[in-house]
Amino acid sequence: MTSYFQHIPPIRFEGADSDNELSFKHYDKDRLVLGKRMEDHLRFAACYWHNFVWTGLDPFGGATFERPWFQGGSPMELAKLKADAAFEFFSKLGVPYYCFHDRDVAPEGATPRESQDNFRRIVDVLAEKQQATGVKLLWGTANLFSHRRFMSGAASNPDPEIFKMAALQVRDAMDATKQLGGENYVLWGGREGYETLLNTRLGQELDQLGRFLNLVVEYKHKIGFKGTILIEPKPREPSKHQYDFDTATVYGFLVRYGLEKEVKVNIEANHATLSGHSFEHEIATAGALGILGSLDMNRGDPQLGWDTDQFPNNVPETAMALYHVLQAGGLGSGGLNFDAKVRRQSIDAADLFHGHIGGMDVCAQALLVAEKMINDGRLQAAVDQRYAGWDSEPGQAILQGRRSLAELADEVLERNTDIAPVSGRQEVLENLFNRFCA
Amino acid sequence: MTSYFQHIPPIRFEGADSDNELSFKHYDKDRLVLGKRMEDHLRFAACYWHNFVWTGLDPFGGATFERPWFQGGSPMELAKLKADAAFEFFSKLGVPYYCFHDRDVAPEGATPRESQDNFRRIVDVLAEKQQATGVKLLWGTANLFSHRRFMSGAASNPDPEIFKMAALQVRDAMDATKQLGGENYVLWGGREGYETLLNTRLGQELDQLGRFLNLVVEYKHKIGFKGTILIEPKPREPSKHQYDFDTATVYGFLVRYGLEKEVKVNIEANHATLSGHSFEHEIATAGALGILGSLDMNRGDPQLGWDTDQFPNNVPETAMALYHVLQAGGLGSGGLNFDAKVRRQSIDAADLFHGHIGGMDVCAQALLVAEKMINDGRLQAAVDQRYAGWDSEPGQAILQGRRSLAELADEVLERNTDIAPVSGRQEVLENLFNRFCA
Amino acid sequence: MTSYFQHIPPIRFEGADSDNELSFKHYDKDRLVLGKRMEDHLRFAACYWHNFVWTGLDPFGGATFERPWFQGGSPMELAKLKADAAFEFFSKLGVPYYCFHDRDVAPEGATPRESQDNFRRIVDVLAEKQQATGVKLLWGTANLFSHRRFMSGAASNPDPEIFKMAALQVRDAMDATKQLGGENYVLWGGREGYETLLNTRLGQELDQLGRFLNLVVEYKHKIGFKGTILIEPKPREPSKHQYDFDTATVYGFLVRYGLEKEVKVNIEANHATLSGHSFEHEIATAGALGILGSLDMNRGDPQLGWDTDQFPNNVPETAMALYHVLQAGGLGSGGLNFDAKVRRQSIDAADLFHGHIGGMDVCAQALLVAEKMINDGRLQAAVDQRYAGWDSEPGQAILQGRRSLAELADEVLERNTDIAPVSGRQEVLENLFNRFCA
Amino acid sequence: MTSYFQHIPPIRFEGADSDNELSFKHYDKDRLVLGKRMEDHLRFAACYWHNFVWTGLDPFGGATFERPWFQGGSPMELAKLKADAAFEFFSKLGVPYYCFHDRDVAPEGATPRESQDNFRRIVDVLAEKQQATGVKLLWGTANLFSHRRFMSGAASNPDPEIFKMAALQVRDAMDATKQLGGENYVLWGGREGYETLLNTRLGQELDQLGRFLNLVVEYKHKIGFKGTILIEPKPREPSKHQYDFDTATVYGFLVRYGLEKEVKVNIEANHATLSGHSFEHEIATAGALGILGSLDMNRGDPQLGWDTDQFPNNVPETAMALYHVLQAGGLGSGGLNFDAKVRRQSIDAADLFHGHIGGMDVCAQALLVAEKMINDGRLQAAVDQRYAGWDSEPGQAILQGRRSLAELADEVLERNTDIAPVSGRQEVLENLFNRFCA
Repeated sequence: MTSYFQHIPPIRFEGADSDNELSFKHYDKDRLVLGKRMEDHLRFAACYWHNFVWTGLDPFGGATFERPWFQGGSPMELAKLKADAAFEFFSKLGVPYYCFHDRDVAPEGATPRESQDNFRRIVDVLAEKQQATGVKLLWGTANLFSHRRFMSGAASNPDPEIFKMAALQVRDAMDATKQLGGENYVLWGGREGYETLLNTRLGQELDQLGRFLNLVVEYKHKIGFKGTILIEPKPREPSKHQYDFDTATVYGFLVRYGLEKEVKVNIEANHATLSGHSFEHEIATAGALGILGSLDMNRGDPQLGWDTDQFPNNVPETAMALYHVLQAGGLGSGGLNFDAKVRRQSIDAADLFHGHIGGMDVCAQALLVAEKMINDGRLQAAVDQRYAGWDSEPGQAILQGRRSLAELADEVLERNTDIAPVSGRQEVLENLFNRFCA
Repeated sequence: MTSYFQHIPPIRFEGADSDNELSFKHYDKDRLVLGKRMEDHLRFAACYWHNFVWTGLDPFGGATFERPWFQGGSPMELAKLKADAAFEFFSKLGVPYYCFHDRDVAPEGATPRESQDNFRRIVDVLAEKQQATGVKLLWGTANLFSHRRFMSGAASNPDPEIFKMAALQVRDAMDATKQLGGENYVLWGGREGYETLLNTRLGQELDQLGRFLNLVVEYKHKIGFKGTILIEPKPREPSKHQYDFDTATVYGFLVRYGLEKEVKVNIEANHATLSGHSFEHEIATAGALGILGSLDMNRGDPQLGWDTDQFPNNVPETAMALYHVLQAGGLGSGGLNFDAKVRRQSIDAADLFHGHIGGMDVCAQALLVAEKMINDGRLQAAVDQRYAGWDSEPGQAILQGRRSLAELADEVLERNTDIAPVSGRQEVLENLFNRFCA
Repeated sequence: MTSYFQHIPPIRFEGADSDNELSFKHYDKDRLVLGKRMEDHLRFAACYWHNFVWTGLDPFGGATFERPWFQGGSPMELAKLKADAAFEFFSKLGVPYYCFHDRDVAPEGATPRESQDNFRRIVDVLAEKQQATGVKLLWGTANLFSHRRFMSGAASNPDPEIFKMAALQVRDAMDATKQLGGENYVLWGGREGYETLLNTRLGQELDQLGRFLNLVVEYKHKIGFKGTILIEPKPREPSKHQYDFDTATVYGFLVRYGLEKEVKVNIEANHATLSGHSFEHEIATAGALGILGSLDMNRGDPQLGWDTDQFPNNVPETAMALYHVLQAGGLGSGGLNFDAKVRRQSIDAADLFHGHIGGMDVCAQALLVAEKMINDGRLQAAVDQRYAGWDSEPGQAILQGRRSLAELADEVLERNTDIAPVSGRQEVLENLFNRFCA
Repeated sequence: MTSYFQHIPPIRFEGADSDNELSFKHYDKDRLVLGKRMEDHLRFAACYWHNFVWTGLDPFGGATFERPWFQGGSPMELAKLKADAAFEFFSKLGVPYYCFHDRDVAPEGATPRESQDNFRRIVDVLAEKQQATGVKLLWGTANLFSHRRFMSGAASNPDPEIFKMAALQVRDAMDATKQLGGENYVLWGGREGYETLLNTRLGQELDQLGRFLNLVVEYKHKIGFKGTILIEPKPREPSKHQYDFDTATVYGFLVRYGLEKEVKVNIEANHATLSGHSFEHEIATAGALGILGSLDMNRGDPQLGWDTDQFPNNVPETAMALYHVLQAGGLGSGGLNFDAKVRRQSIDAADLFHGHIGGMDVCAQALLVAEKMINDGRLQAAVDQRYAGWDSEPGQAILQGRRSLAELADEVLERNTDIAPVSGRQEVLENLFNRFCA
């Protein structure tokens, strides 16, 4: 049998001058950047769902992709065919990692046991594929949002029996993630939210979610899974409101349920922008709160109000994001997963490669920009100078709680002069940033 | 000397059939609603800033309002003239409360001491006015965002000397609030955010804010001020990003800095919608998290991306908000402050009355709708039925932490059948809600 | 064989006090409003697609509705079963009209001829159903956006062969609309736009669309179809940009291609809000430009950036829309089509009725509010007074082009005084409007 | 007397490696690009209003900029001081053009005649300055939105006397533009819109605007002004709705009032994005409709819902805009005016230079990218190949109206096979575009 991508050669770094569309122009995995290999900085992953599960369907139209694993066999045969194609793709693309949902890789069965059995059999297939190709699992997750039983939520469902169904899937998906050497485990609560408050106990649903996450963390420790548990914030879509709205909301949720030391965030660019934040804002916030875990690399369209999941293609914007990752000390066990899909009109097999090649090259260029920003040091110096007063002893005395409100107020009255503000120099710093991008 | 509103009679309840534009059609303050006077439910306040400080200026045009207290005298004379007009307005309108910023009522002086002195002298005037009219202070606050010294933040300023200037204003404003019997003290961090991350230490600014708020709480206890301290969330504007983005973000911030028992939120409708939430979402969230404090009543325009601060004028929408206030147990020491302004083209003195009369009548109608919703009980019953499984012992066992993930998962496998979802009945409930509005 | 809605009785007007969820509280079709029956004002239609074609699928989840016509028979058998259910629904609901796309009612075949044949056979079934029930066709349309062949547009496709495929469907759909006595024919260009300018000849695509619409108009006249041709504006979704962005854009397009006397607009509330306009703005604009045709009644969610197609449920907002319809002289051959769907979680057969009953009652209440607004006359009088200067001879002289710029400028200099503006009185008018809603 | 910018040297091109913040790294005005000098392509203008009139004031705070021409003299003395600073700035920056509103340069007087006299006197000063420095006028315009008399519109005002006041200002501003050799005349209708339809005759206001614009065009021809008249679209702000919403709307307006051959558009990036379009969309649309006139270069913030008027700083985005300008045949008498302002915190005189230097360098880089795109030719070739069917005789026969709907439909039936779609190749083209940016 011939492979789906047989006409595609492995993608190699050929440099910026190559005219080969199927080559990397900038992603040179062994190049050292700030003392570490590019591959080890970026830890790229490709995802199963957009590339091998999505048919091109959107709310106004049907499938456009005609893949051999979409029809013409039993569900399990098709699942194996899909796995063949997926690992051929991951290998030829040269990403070190992949990510999947349980239902991406194996079909739902007629009963819970059959679903479990399907999944376990395919997980064994994935294990063999990983072994054969060297591709590793960045993270696993359970799909708790596509099946109609989860239409009103999984852990936050009004029916505790659905909560249990979710428990089963997460238990099994975490077991599989551990078996496959996955380095993280992700929870995205696509239906953990509400459509209308008229039928919702908001406070109780938060408690349900908090309980569920505690159960998951306890289970992780019980089985000795060493990966990081990650929540992926999103403000809405498909829900009208999603409880994990953004990084700051997730932080408050984690603290409320005692989990801020156990769980971090997987930040997606398009989810960030849908929540009214820049991608770098979410990264910097997670860094400041100590919960930066991993990134879903993609981009939204600033004129569109839904998740377009496009590949990143703007180097300056991506550089700003990666600069803040580096400033926060990197991603640890996390990586850059392309939660991105080719457009519905990009129906050729090769388009899957083009999307990822472009994304990887953009991230590589962005990393090199961020390296220049750090090595140059002027941006950092400008910030340090701006806050110098806080680094001095009087500033530290305030921050460390050695001064009272009244003392500070009285000092002002004693001196009895106003304080002149100084320029924020935003344009100077933007120009400086742009020089690193050139 | 004649008064500014001399041609306006005191506003009275005249019932829905009155043709008098300067009367209440629905706000009947002594009417009992759910066992309490309408006035005691709604606790209306009018604000100083939009009514008596704003000149009609917007980013593209100059002043349109020609008030006698805007020019033609010394700053302190004008401040007194303004106070005369303000209390005449509050009295004739019949609101039990008002709210102010320190700089609304008294002019900034040439030095910190002169500013303090100006403020103290006017606070004495306000005390007399309160005494004379019976109008009370719902909350006081300090304006830490208009003066150029605060252009880069107050408590989050890169310069600790500005932090001290903020400390002085808040100390004095809280003293004044206590002196005037204010029932709450509000902090809105209009400049507590950033314009660009390129010049910002985000994590440190959060620490500065946390420190500042702790200083304020300590001072409150030191002086024995009994009111509630409230943070007013807003996602942005004037800042590109504001740290107190929304209620969930403020909750996380409060917990991080140990203040979730000390501080609540003052939720504004227009700030809610700018942050991507409905007003009732923010109220229900604050209720669930135990930090619901007070409301700034207004409305935004769903097509406009900035704070329009219009008066509420949609009864069904307002009813949904007040229903959630009642469900959360009411506002305690909080109230409904009209952080709303007449349009820039509404230049007549009477327009100030029309805006408030409309807003108060809408709130009164909305309260009566909410009363019907509660007395009828069918909405609550529908919710209770939907979550009945969680109220049962097996559901409680999960919520209370008596079941593990593996136990729940294994139960599903043992039963080995799927769970059929049930209708969320949103349309039925929306129709039911609409019947209460009719 | 039993019918799908056998447990649902015909819906009757029972008045506001009825506790029967399956009755109209306000929609009393024979009630006279401004001298015309309510039914003749509102001309309600229910749609085929949301009620009988959509499975509950969304971008993140699969089907939730389990209807008998979704599986278990040949496509044509299922199409007939669907028609049975649809007309049972229309009849029991008591809407005078329905609307459909060609592919809603009959399945795509293996070849163009088979598709045509399927469609024609079902159209005959529909004709019988109309005859039997008295339900009429408000408008027909062709689905030129769901099939993968149209993924890059129909009339605006880069391939003229696809343009021809579109021509075939529209020809046949218009023939069917004529056969069924349809009163209008609609074109919604869901894919008539672009995903990226990088692969698009924007100007040529506009010309293709202009040519196509001219062909359609010529065909209409050739076959003697008397209904109105309507374009339905939408700014985006599924396309990144849709050429028929809003009413003003469609107007410019029509004039450019010589069609402003031939084609009107079908305005949808949710499309209006997605384009940055209020519903009433689009209605008033179409009225002013002489192209108001028909309405798709629904509502969006102001916090969501996609087409939620919910049923209208806010009486004041709907009243404002209907007031502007009446001000524009009504809809002529148009009507109010509910392009609205029950939520994905509303999986019961009865939910389809609840959604429409709520929508129809809201429109009925809104119509009664609009009637009060018109009969009262104060709103109109306020507007007339505001523009009185333009109704005077000097104003008319300017409007009619009898004055030059220099003459007007010199007049100002001669008088040499400024003009004082007068209050816009927005709050007064909003209060007045609210009184009609109470 | 010392000059305001005396510490700033003239800005020179020093190349990408210069560490001089006050130099151009990329803007090398004499460099040939596609056979024309960079300066002649870009035709940069700096604006009077943001740089010399705005005080740093925003809706929540007062002035932050302390310029010598803001206080300390009579209005006319200050106006001259401002002109000194402005031309010193333009000269040192090295922009060939500037732009102004009448009220930017000269103060409103106590009467219309005094205002006219003030303006004429300063226009003479500007003429001398232009002569002395060689700086030219790209366009003039009249401020019909800041003064309170225009709060309800200028040409669309309900009072025809205000319309006349507008006529006076435009007449005089066009006279001045002609006197100063201005190459275009711009109308931005900031208040030509509405706040509420409740007090608005929408259709009549459109007619008023149409009449006004005809008067302006007639006056232009009467005085022999040769420049282009430009309308600047904006969807809203300060108005709730602005009539010149976007380019497509302006096109429809121009055709309606017979002006599509007389008037073009001045497209602003930030206005484009506020209207739900990309900047390049607006440019390509204007190009397709034959009304592309000039550009206001700036950028908005995709997370903010108001006009932030920041300097362009993203090279790929700017390159896409300039590519579409070149594809449309360039700007003719138009140019690139920086309708951009330094942030409110950028209070140093030098910040004005930094903002413009950054913007000019970004545009220069973008122009070089666009040159590469055009010289390379692959993007154009990909588009041509995609539309090849339309360039063939059968495609042309359709476009030129030689085929009927029925003929096209019947052809499909005769062939009786489906048409397979081909990939849109968006990712390939995005990658290709990015190579030009590297």
